[in-house]
Amino acid sequence: MRTEGLSINLATVREQFTLREAVETCARLGITAIDPWRDQVQKQGLEESAKIVTAHGMRVTGLCRGGFFPAPDAAGRATAIDDNKRALDEAAAIGAECLVLVVGGLPAGSRDIAGARTMVSEGIDACRAHAKAVGVPLAIEPLHPMYAADRACVNTLGQALDMCNQLGPDVGVAIDVYHLWWDPDFEAQIARAGREKRILAHHICDWLVPTKDMLLDRGMMGDGVIDLKRIRRAIEAAGYDGPQEVEILSSHWWSQPGEQVIRTCIERYNTVC
Amino acid sequence: MRTEGLSINLATVREQFTLREAVETCARLGITAIDPWRDQVQKQGLEESAKIVTAHGMRVTGLCRGGFFPAPDAAGRATAIDDNKRALDEAAAIGAECLVLVVGGLPAGSRDIAGARTMVSEGIDACRAHAKAVGVPLAIEPLHPMYAADRACVNTLGQALDMCNQLGPDVGVAIDVYHLWWDPDFEAQIARAGREKRILAHHICDWLVPTKDMLLDRGMMGDGVIDLKRIRRAIEAAGYDGPQEVEILSSHWWSQPGEQVIRTCIERYNTVC
Repeated sequence: MRTEGLSINLATVREQFTLREAVETCARLGITAIDPWRDQVQKQGLEESAKIVTAHGMRVTGLCRGGFFPAPDAAGRATAIDDNKRALDEAAAIGAECLVLVVGGLPAGSRDIAGARTMVSEGIDACRAHAKAVGVPLAIEPLHPMYAADRACVNTLGQALDMCNQLGPDVGVAIDVYHLWWDPDFEAQIARAGREKRILAHHICDWLVPTKDMLLDRGMMGDGVIDLKRIRRAIEAAGYDGPQEVEILSSHWWSQPGEQVIRTCIERYNTVC
Repeated sequence: MRTEGLSINLATVREQFTLREAVETCARLGITAIDPWRDQVQKQGLEESAKIVTAHGMRVTGLCRGGFFPAPDAAGRATAIDDNKRALDEAAAIGAECLVLVVGGLPAGSRDIAGARTMVSEGIDACRAHAKAVGVPLAIEPLHPMYAADRACVNTLGQALDMCNQLGPDVGVAIDVYHLWWDPDFEAQIARAGREKRILAHHICDWLVPTKDMLLDRGMMGDGVIDLKRIRRAIEAAGYDGPQEVEILSSHWWSQPGEQVIRTCIERYNTVC
């Protein structure tokens, strides 16, 4: 089965595998691209992670995740910016093609979502020069509106692209179908993202009906209601030909053997993506 | 404490009270407006419900709910339209100012959300003449995107207003803060809804952090992160001066004594709305 054009976000097997085990399993199954999370890299060691990735000839479609810029005070926001710069360094060290940003929600005690959005924009702006210096673009990932309060106050592709245009170069978007499939404006904004050269990543999974948990019940491609083929066609028509990256946060899939999960990702990638 | 301008959606006390008990309690506490659900009206009896409402001089800010238009086949869609016409008759019988529509999500087995949206628009269109005949406008309620698959594929105020404009007269929108507070375009669309004379209802509650359940964990006003005063100012600036209608679907609040819940609604209405 085809594995070209497929990337595995290592959160998909985070409960089963270390970074090394995940990369080795992916390589053995013919997969040539991955996207690790920072805690996985840190646990394995940054230098060691870079060596493992290189030894297996892996393309690194991103590092997850920077972000979480809003904070109640200026000191907290400065700390977040520093941490994002370190994340950019780590991304550069493992050759990641972008740093994926989960931008953060409302600061504790706040009801000012417009203010939080300003903090996000300012935080990203403060990281752009560093991103350029290390050669890793910042990928704003709009998250589903159900995460607006506590994870990311950027919630549509249109909003993320507006923010990119306000910021300038060295930023783009990670398009995750889970967060955006419902948006009546989604396809028009994909086309716009292509025109504006902002697409840095394409994440896939599925939306289950019913969804039993707001965080850990993402579906395997084909088990839900997202029209993955249609969205991929739109993204390719917009000029993006990078991998489709499987990212499934799911207590169900985390309870299955890691290799079986990755085999299932390959199988579904070949049938429904 | 002020009760003027406050309406209680009877779903808020659905586990504690019959329609009669809910209306009597509301009246005793000085509340002059309610919005019952169809099953509550049917359980009490339509004629009896109308009598109870009239006897207590209650304004009826809506009847919940019509909708659920999409279906896999034409027969299913026709059944839904017939049922919505009956709901309009019931709304007229109790003097409801609108029929609130939870429009429905994807038909079983479908991944075609654009198709579902067309079915919604066609379904509402098929009910408009009846709505006009009985004098009850149809209020499209955009629901939070987390319900796009299974409850309502109309998910932003802008999308609902576009649909209204496509349809013509006898339709409008119910603006529920729970579903729409996160939208970066929310205030602009409230202003537009005012200009286009589409605002039929204003529902309030709060968004809790964390939200533990996707359906039954809505918050009491003041317990969450929604800037209710700001939204109300925008709605009034748009020319709508109807009641703020409390609708809280919450296993927590359903476990409390009904009168206490309504007293808390009044108290919070006076402090944070």
